[in-house]
Amino acid sequence: VEPGGEQNPVGALISLADYEREARLRLDQDAFAYYAGGAADELTLRDNEAAWRRLAIMPRVLVGVGERDAGVTVLGRRRAHPLIIAPMAFQAMAHPDGESATARAAAATGTVMCVSTLASVSPEAVAHAAPLATRWFQLYVFKDRGITAELVSQAVASGYEAILVTADAPVAGVRERELRHPVRGLPVQLGDALAAGGGTLSPIAAAAQFDPDLRWADVAHMSRECPLPVLVKGVLTPGDAERALAHGARGVVVSNHGGRQLDTVPAGADALPAVVDAVGDRLDVLVDGGIRRGTDLLKALALGARAALVGRPVLWGLAVAGEDGARRVLEILLAEFDRALALAGVPDAERVGPELLAPARW
Amino acid sequence: VEPGGEQNPVGALISLADYEREARLRLDQDAFAYYAGGAADELTLRDNEAAWRRLAIMPRVLVGVGERDAGVTVLGRRRAHPLIIAPMAFQAMAHPDGESATARAAAATGTVMCVSTLASVSPEAVAHAAPLATRWFQLYVFKDRGITAELVSQAVASGYEAILVTADAPVAGVRERELRHPVRGLPVQLGDALAAGGGTLSPIAAAAQFDPDLRWADVAHMSRECPLPVLVKGVLTPGDAERALAHGARGVVVSNHGGRQLDTVPAGADALPAVVDAVGDRLDVLVDGGIRRGTDLLKALALGARAALVGRPVLWGLAVAGEDGARRVLEILLAEFDRALALAGVPDAERVGPELLAPARW
Amino acid sequence: VEPGGEQNPVGALISLADYEREARLRLDQDAFAYYAGGAADELTLRDNEAAWRRLAIMPRVLVGVGERDAGVTVLGRRRAHPLIIAPMAFQAMAHPDGESATARAAAATGTVMCVSTLASVSPEAVAHAAPLATRWFQLYVFKDRGITAELVSQAVASGYEAILVTADAPVAGVRERELRHPVRGLPVQLGDALAAGGGTLSPIAAAAQFDPDLRWADVAHMSRECPLPVLVKGVLTPGDAERALAHGARGVVVSNHGGRQLDTVPAGADALPAVVDAVGDRLDVLVDGGIRRGTDLLKALALGARAALVGRPVLWGLAVAGEDGARRVLEILLAEFDRALALAGVPDAERVGPELLAPARW
Amino acid sequence: VEPGGEQNPVGALISLADYEREARLRLDQDAFAYYAGGAADELTLRDNEAAWRRLAIMPRVLVGVGERDAGVTVLGRRRAHPLIIAPMAFQAMAHPDGESATARAAAATGTVMCVSTLASVSPEAVAHAAPLATRWFQLYVFKDRGITAELVSQAVASGYEAILVTADAPVAGVRERELRHPVRGLPVQLGDALAAGGGTLSPIAAAAQFDPDLRWADVAHMSRECPLPVLVKGVLTPGDAERALAHGARGVVVSNHGGRQLDTVPAGADALPAVVDAVGDRLDVLVDGGIRRGTDLLKALALGARAALVGRPVLWGLAVAGEDGARRVLEILLAEFDRALALAGVPDAERVGPELLAPARW
Repeated sequence: VEPGGEQNPVGALISLADYEREARLRLDQDAFAYYAGGAADELTLRDNEAAWRRLAIMPRVLVGVGERDAGVTVLGRRRAHPLIIAPMAFQAMAHPDGESATARAAAATGTVMCVSTLASVSPEAVAHAAPLATRWFQLYVFKDRGITAELVSQAVASGYEAILVTADAPVAGVRERELRHPVRGLPVQLGDALAAGGGTLSPIAAAAQFDPDLRWADVAHMSRECPLPVLVKGVLTPGDAERALAHGARGVVVSNHGGRQLDTVPAGADALPAVVDAVGDRLDVLVDGGIRRGTDLLKALALGARAALVGRPVLWGLAVAGEDGARRVLEILLAEFDRALALAGVPDAERVGPELLAPARW
Repeated sequence: VEPGGEQNPVGALISLADYEREARLRLDQDAFAYYAGGAADELTLRDNEAAWRRLAIMPRVLVGVGERDAGVTVLGRRRAHPLIIAPMAFQAMAHPDGESATARAAAATGTVMCVSTLASVSPEAVAHAAPLATRWFQLYVFKDRGITAELVSQAVASGYEAILVTADAPVAGVRERELRHPVRGLPVQLGDALAAGGGTLSPIAAAAQFDPDLRWADVAHMSRECPLPVLVKGVLTPGDAERALAHGARGVVVSNHGGRQLDTVPAGADALPAVVDAVGDRLDVLVDGGIRRGTDLLKALALGARAALVGRPVLWGLAVAGEDGARRVLEILLAEFDRALALAGVPDAERVGPELLAPARW
Repeated sequence: VEPGGEQNPVGALISLADYEREARLRLDQDAFAYYAGGAADELTLRDNEAAWRRLAIMPRVLVGVGERDAGVTVLGRRRAHPLIIAPMAFQAMAHPDGESATARAAAATGTVMCVSTLASVSPEAVAHAAPLATRWFQLYVFKDRGITAELVSQAVASGYEAILVTADAPVAGVRERELRHPVRGLPVQLGDALAAGGGTLSPIAAAAQFDPDLRWADVAHMSRECPLPVLVKGVLTPGDAERALAHGARGVVVSNHGGRQLDTVPAGADALPAVVDAVGDRLDVLVDGGIRRGTDLLKALALGARAALVGRPVLWGLAVAGEDGARRVLEILLAEFDRALALAGVPDAERVGPELLAPARW
Repeated sequence: VEPGGEQNPVGALISLADYEREARLRLDQDAFAYYAGGAADELTLRDNEAAWRRLAIMPRVLVGVGERDAGVTVLGRRRAHPLIIAPMAFQAMAHPDGESATARAAAATGTVMCVSTLASVSPEAVAHAAPLATRWFQLYVFKDRGITAELVSQAVASGYEAILVTADAPVAGVRERELRHPVRGLPVQLGDALAAGGGTLSPIAAAAQFDPDLRWADVAHMSRECPLPVLVKGVLTPGDAERALAHGARGVVVSNHGGRQLDTVPAGADALPAVVDAVGDRLDVLVDGGIRRGTDLLKALALGARAALVGRPVLWGLAVAGEDGARRVLEILLAEFDRALALAGVPDAERVGPELLAPARW
């Protein structure tokens, strides 16, 4: 069946933008502000989406696209498609089923899910909720390294496939929407050692406990000690990608943290090509920020990313209809990606290259 | 008489934009959405018009323009002017007289008309309605090649001059306006073999029957077997134009299908120059997308197109006033083109070249 | 006294934009549409103003600007300043005193005035109304060359200083605002030979009588035969400026006819530099289109124009307060120009050069 | 505590934009217009802010930013941070405590304050109000050089650290908002020699007394005779920066006077790099115009400025809450700057270089 099919009513949710609009109506406004907001004037936040629109696709026709293959290889393993769910904190705020529902949606669609350090439940609980989902663990390194070690151990023990170390949050960003719509302490899985009374934590209180002195040497240490492959998330320059390689990382995520940390840094789409040029043959380069269409995902591959993370839209799906909503969002994006492969004349996702793109003129 | 003349009331329809506005009021909104909409975020749809506006005309003065000649040569035949009516499906939805009215408007203005595979009536019926109109047949290739062959036979038998093979629709585009405003099954001429109960078919059901595996070899086969010249519609790159030439086509239409297939591909105006550079001396290169003014048509010629197709505006004319409306739209565009020839200082349409243009600064 | 002085009420008219706003309120809407409108989508109309804004001024400081000299040399004669009133038709429609009031405002401010062929009164009558005003006669060449010769004779006999031949109106532009707001037959000075019953003529009827076959040879003939210097108005390319020189013209006006003829031709400000490069040392190059600020006038000089014509704003002044309004508009512009000379650090208008400008970044 | 902290109500003032919005509500509209307005069409005014947004930051990660040092060296002295309060006239119009409150806010935050010639109180009075504040004296040179000399003497005697000579105001700008909202005569410290009856003066009357013939020789004279270092404020070109150096200045402020003098000159951010290239190794180059975020301040340093002046936002703070408001504005900006140092991966402000920046793509 087509997305929406022939009998869609006007109000049907057939695009990621529809889910965002609907989630804005359904979520309480503090929660929406927390998820939707970015740093300062939100220039980078908005540009994450705009940057993909600045790229035009130069399609080929009549190549025969009756069969399409969306599969890619990431961290040495073949995946059904290049879509990954980005790590996002406090998902219980979007829906009572939180991360567990997201994980089941991931499993249903063959999507890798990144689970946040600030998840509402433990890495183990997410694993139990959706044992078939491939899961990566996103790690904030706390000043208290004991907590960090404990978190990694839990992830290893619960069958997580990789560790994603967040590099771009040594201090919190200037998030004004969040400051104007403060969310109360939220349930987290971090235990009494870190969380405040009742096992809850607010986003700002959490950020205050991250280690601002985290360095490349810590990445090297983790890469050596941890049995799982380590990826560094939050790299925007080729120099830092080189350093990730030199310090033992297996991949990098070109990312500006969804526009939530330092305003006026480049969009993922714009930072990606130089990183790919520098290390694309030696590291798995992923990207996130502003992926809202199947064509965005296609462009990410064309620029050299092996996969792309999508964040907020999955939360909007979760907020609208729990697991079903999250799954539907992923399905829409994957169906659009399939059409993009067909209409761009590149039926095999692993053969998409930079010749597919040109700067947009609009 | 001037367009509109001296006694125009404020509400007179004197431009193509006027007809669009009026048609939006008169058509039912599902039909308007079907015709007006494009793929996904409609960036390409909007850019089709904007791209012509990005070109400035560098006029010459005092060359003597008392006589102007709008004539051009296409497929080896001299034509009164470079305007062609683009293929558009289901015209009975715009007006009960549908394709027949459009064909009569074409005949009255010396305009070539492309008749769609998804026309409301058969190629033969259109031919009977307006025997003096020069007609080209637009071909969607169905999975069922028998239907395809039957359609081409009808076109040949009914005196069509050329076959226009659509190359950019192996699968349907993500057309959200259409999905939100689904049109019911429509009368089509395809017979019981393809159309659903009662001889009707919906756009989405039709698209599902097109062959996604269509290849250049099919074009070569058709070029050899069909007694009519074959043009490939939907080419956006010089490489595909070269392949059209190599596989026996007589021409290409640089087109993005009115922005209805893959969003974020380039506008016709932007894709045209590279195609002309590659094959302009060996193939007839036509263009469509966003032609709304006589100056747009002039620019298309200056960029090397031999002719340009105009689509939606003719439908708006049809919707507003049937044959008279469609004819009036064509007349307005041709009168504007005549003025553009005069004011640009290029009274002979066949001598319009790239020196006439510069990038716009606005 | 400062423009507006210290006691300006909020509603005081202290800028040209104020006069436009006020004139829009006071004029009947057909007359406003006739004056304000441009061709087709009015892209060129709008860009005339925008083009000056695309230029930044790089000011010098501390050069001593206690004395400023706005004077320039045009057609071999020293003028108090580089501002000229552009030819505009039918000024009686803006105010009963029409061209006579404008001429008195010109005289009061030392401004050259161009009088239109389609003036409400004869060249002689304008001369009588303001004998001290320097006047140039703008000439439309009619199919009936007898009328043309008669008009030039009147201008010569009435002490006009130069003839400005309009080159960019072989046919009328597609002026939609004018078509939607048709003005009735207007009193003109053309006599019974041309004007319709009662000595009136409508703009469209007038345009229909201009000679579309006017050529450079006609300019050469006129330059030889006419005792006054001939300037060609409506040139936008260096090639045409070279031709003007070769055919005996003494100057050119880089102009797009106020955006009223062919839409999407360049703004005067953008076309000017190439013309100056080609003939600036051998012809007087003037410019018009979109001058609304003293800084615009300064930029015109910096790009190599010897003077600049301002049109609609003078009509807005005329519409608001007759001669006083027209004079006030000129005074505001000249006072702004004086400040611009001071603040840009170029106190002598004849020494303003291209080093003063850079592309704007906004 | 975070800016705004966790318990911010929606209406809390947590950004400079919040203070501007609030000040607009609280100030009488004539005073707001005087402070907020710029020259003519205010293109330069708006571009001052926009120019910083046209620069993207290329952050480094994992460098260890637990300790940040915002300190810089200006005029040979180490300062706590690179923020300076720009000279602004008539601060009593914003709040009864006027310049004294601003000076106390400066002292509380370790910020250098520039005191205007047109301050509501004397240089001495400002010194007494906040003896610990580092103060620079901004000098308008009057036609009556006796007044000028007297002002400088007062500044020297009251412990001011430097003299900032304004070079870009030989005549007043065309400030239309100010003309439409005229402020009455205001109390000033200039004494009966200059101020009108009752010791008050209006902005326009003051400007009329500035010397339009001020020249570089005057700067040379002042640099020789005055015991304090002299900086020239209002330079926008490398040539003028070279002349400042040649005539004995110790520094320049790249500035367009807050967009209040000549419209369409470049923004400070755009003019800065060429000035730094020319004289950055021999003069202290400062910049002002449009600094509204900590990231703007970081960008100013990256472009080679040693410090940056912020103007209107401090007045908005003053208008909202007197000394507390002015101090809060400075604190917000400094806190944002500290976060920017951390998140850009440049914990030492003196090591910020041009490699940190790239042209923005948005």
